[in-house]
Amino acid sequence: MNTQPLKYILSCDRHKNSLIFPHLAWARSLANWSGPCEGERPSAYIIIFGDTEISRFVDYDAGIAAQSIMLGATEKGLGGCMIASIDRDGLRKVLEILPRYEILLVLALGKPKETVVIETVGPNGDTKYWRDNEGVHHVPKRPLDDIIIGYI
Amino acid sequence: MNTQPLKYILSCDRHKNSLIFPHLAWARSLANWSGPCEGERPSAYIIIFGDTEISRFVDYDAGIAAQSIMLGATEKGLGGCMIASIDRDGLRKVLEILPRYEILLVLALGKPKETVVIETVGPNGDTKYWRDNEGVHHVPKRPLDDIIIGYI
Repeated sequence: MNTQPLKYILSCDRHKNSLIFPHLAWARSLANWSGPCEGERPSAYIIIFGDTEISRFVDYDAGIAAQSIMLGATEKGLGGCMIASIDRDGLRKVLEILPRYEILLVLALGKPKETVVIETVGPNGDTKYWRDNEGVHHVPKRPLDDIIIGYI
Repeated sequence: MNTQPLKYILSCDRHKNSLIFPHLAWARSLANWSGPCEGERPSAYIIIFGDTEISRFVDYDAGIAAQSIMLGATEKGLGGCMIASIDRDGLRKVLEILPRYEILLVLALGKPKETVVIETVGPNGDTKYWRDNEGVHHVPKRPLDDIIIGYI
């Protein structure tokens, strides 16, 4: 319906980034990793909000926008992560966000350091991502035959 | 979390397409247009489902996937529309969709016939898309200054 209910806050300042960082949960599937250490943390964030005065129907839009931004960032040689696991109350407080803006997603951006390998899910069907001994990040993806449930 | 809860049904068959079409609402802002006439209807559909046995947290994923598919389609010279205004009960019935699959979005695809112009929202702030006398489809978008609510 072209209502465009999304709003954004941009941050690429070291101090402001440090206010955002502690309110994000990092890579929960990696039990032995508590998130990026100092020096490897994102150098920029884009926070995506839903403007509740425009619409409450915002989640598909947020995914669409997040993907467009990430593809653009990748094209520029950057890497990023879409984070939905957010301490929303804490982030709202520290950034003094008005109640009208619902916090949807945080995009973390920076120069990628990690090697990420997309591979097919193994026979056990486990989709959990993992890191090998060399620190390579493996992301098992379901094969096309499993996700297309019908040609009609 | 890499759970990959989305599933898909693909249709590019004239008869099957005709089963899907009546369950979609078209361009509600165009009061004098009831949707594409025979011969201008989509030649393919991709229906995106959330697999509730995997996750209920699927809406951002659906937006991400829909945008990726649409950008790929555009690159191939196709045009498309993401449709969320769906008669979900009717579509489920006619396609015999199992209850485990939640209908999220329908992507309509085909060779584009219409000229679409993206322009900046006018002084009245109205975001409704509209067609002019030559049938050109105008889509007013909010300027960047209106959607970025803060640089921090």
